[in-house]
Amino acid sequence: MNYQHIFDQAIERLHEEGRYRVFIDILRNKGAFPNARCFAGHNGPKPITVWCSNDYLAMGQHPKVVTAMEEALHDVGAGSGGTRNIGGNTHYHIELENELADLHGKEGALLFTSGYVSNEASLATLAKLLPGCVIFSDELNHASMIAGIRNSGCEKRVFRHNDLEHLEELLAAEDIDTPKLIAFESVYSMDGDVAPVHAICDLAEKYNALTYIDEVHAVGMYGKRGGGITERDEAADRVDIIEGTLGKAFGVMGGYIAADKKIIDCIRSYAPGFIFTTSLSPVLVAGVLASVKHLKASSEERDAQQASAAKLKAMMREAHLPVMDSTTHIVPLMVGDPVRAKKISDILLAEYGVYVQPINFPTVPRGTERLRFTPGPAHTEELMAELVDALVEIWDRLDMELQEAA
Amino acid sequence: MNYQHIFDQAIERLHEEGRYRVFIDILRNKGAFPNARCFAGHNGPKPITVWCSNDYLAMGQHPKVVTAMEEALHDVGAGSGGTRNIGGNTHYHIELENELADLHGKEGALLFTSGYVSNEASLATLAKLLPGCVIFSDELNHASMIAGIRNSGCEKRVFRHNDLEHLEELLAAEDIDTPKLIAFESVYSMDGDVAPVHAICDLAEKYNALTYIDEVHAVGMYGKRGGGITERDEAADRVDIIEGTLGKAFGVMGGYIAADKKIIDCIRSYAPGFIFTTSLSPVLVAGVLASVKHLKASSEERDAQQASAAKLKAMMREAHLPVMDSTTHIVPLMVGDPVRAKKISDILLAEYGVYVQPINFPTVPRGTERLRFTPGPAHTEELMAELVDALVEIWDRLDMELQEAA
Repeated sequence: MNYQHIFDQAIERLHEEGRYRVFIDILRNKGAFPNARCFAGHNGPKPITVWCSNDYLAMGQHPKVVTAMEEALHDVGAGSGGTRNIGGNTHYHIELENELADLHGKEGALLFTSGYVSNEASLATLAKLLPGCVIFSDELNHASMIAGIRNSGCEKRVFRHNDLEHLEELLAAEDIDTPKLIAFESVYSMDGDVAPVHAICDLAEKYNALTYIDEVHAVGMYGKRGGGITERDEAADRVDIIEGTLGKAFGVMGGYIAADKKIIDCIRSYAPGFIFTTSLSPVLVAGVLASVKHLKASSEERDAQQASAAKLKAMMREAHLPVMDSTTHIVPLMVGDPVRAKKISDILLAEYGVYVQPINFPTVPRGTERLRFTPGPAHTEELMAELVDALVEIWDRLDMELQEAA
Repeated sequence: MNYQHIFDQAIERLHEEGRYRVFIDILRNKGAFPNARCFAGHNGPKPITVWCSNDYLAMGQHPKVVTAMEEALHDVGAGSGGTRNIGGNTHYHIELENELADLHGKEGALLFTSGYVSNEASLATLAKLLPGCVIFSDELNHASMIAGIRNSGCEKRVFRHNDLEHLEELLAAEDIDTPKLIAFESVYSMDGDVAPVHAICDLAEKYNALTYIDEVHAVGMYGKRGGGITERDEAADRVDIIEGTLGKAFGVMGGYIAADKKIIDCIRSYAPGFIFTTSLSPVLVAGVLASVKHLKASSEERDAQQASAAKLKAMMREAHLPVMDSTTHIVPLMVGDPVRAKKISDILLAEYGVYVQPINFPTVPRGTERLRFTPGPAHTEELMAELVDALVEIWDRLDMELQEAA
């Protein structure tokens, strides 16, 4: 047994496939987002423009958020000091859970240290509590949902992406008395398309299934108060569990679910990923609380982000760049090859000060490697014009075909 | 299929066993730790003394930590805005990983959003990379290690707690060419005992196994620079992977592993729980960086904590309270019944302003329910005397036998 050799081979495989990941070393400049500093080794310590942040609305630098965090830091200190059960349950946590429950019109909410953990822990625990449960999972579900489903040990049926006919076919094949859970996302973050929430809920009612929706790329950004696609489509009361993140539109860190009290109590009481972990720092929780409250009342950031995304997509289409058919704020540009995607990204950073990460397997299927832009309220039309010019120049340099929208 | 009924039953089971958990709603008072405010519903909004925090050295309120977090908050904002690979890799993260690698004398380190995730993701990923791997796991390993081992899908052999003979028996039963991983903790947090690290490493060498140690209750607190039991026992270079937390002695939040570069690169590249999650907020990372640096240079907090723990144990023994046989900073008081443990805890909070959470199943085995005290540098002898008097009074009131150390 030569362990070193096995580890060597594991890394070698990544290099061979051109998908070995190099992390770009940056610091964002508060008050000047999307501006950031990039450190030596990439393009040297010089200013860059971040085009791939999930801090979609720049709430991570919002004065209300920063002030709330500063106040909490000075009031209670850095960390919570324990699990939620043992010393780590602060008043901030309780207040934020109430706020999130209200955001989604649910009886309760539960915080986790990340969106990943909220999906993993909630799905695995729910399914384990339901004897013989079968989970119906959209084929493009996020890795964290897949982890939760796999770790539940339940039977899984994967339905083709957003394909209601296929979902119904799979539901109908099970006994009506079998516990069922349909797990899907609202906004799929790499393609930018949206699930037919009402139609999935219709099927859930017909076949007596629970529904679980991942709204991490929608909370804060859709609906009048930022309640996500389920708020926009007036479907929140039809979905049993709504999962969201505090690390994207809300600009901080953490994850949560919202649901009726009984379900929240079950997850709270049975999920190892919730029970056995130090709770979110109260500093973060205070920041999120300010962020959620602000975005409940203000649509300015949401509207500006939608306008930016529409603008950039239109400009890319006009320049015949292969922008994918996204109906949301996500702007994916298809490349279709991991080596080329990395090359474009490298040139953008080194020569143009544009930071956009190549997206490769396993985040997207092989052969669909892409660049994924997330323009926000702070990305000006001038920045967009520079970006599109740069992309056209690079596409030309690499002899890539300019074409109509992919 | 009546889902509500199933969820009702799940909660009912907890009430019946007396282990339904009620979270105590508190806010710690920075600068006055272990003092905190407790909110209505428990003993009303009045001051309490926290006796069960894992912020062992009160670093969560250390001026250096608070200042570093405040500076980062104003420099770069609230959250990282992305995964480590996509926009969320800040210079703070890289600096902290270098600092932690140095702390343990390893080539590299890798940050996770929590200690739970670091265990789950690292163990599951390591074992999956090694074809046919068998994992040898101490029976008292933490839930996060058990989750990682189970989620790896590997064969698992559980050895009796700290039992070298049993471990060797299990190791010897496997083919020498089978990849093997021994997973254990240094300080077991509920009993307060310590693993024989060198002897386990001897066995690992003899049977060509990798070693993985969880040092979450030891980093910052043992060893000259806070490198944990592996530093104290000069065994760090013999253990392949050292795992630690940033949420206990370091006072903030997050987790990490330290190991050679190849192993770090493998986990970094293959672990879904690392790849697909928003990275730690740079505000937290900056705080931890200050904390780790401080505890590398200062032994004052470590020494004061050890003195406090020894003092409290001695006082409890003298009062004939059933303090368990702990060789570390942990002070567990055996109760042996979940209802009674909760009752004692409730009386302490309501009548004495003493906050110590009852520890029940699944955190400890049924029948070994206990109170677990974590005195730190800031718990004075006066506070200890009050605590012991209160405990003796309650033991007497509940007709519990005072006895020699359990």
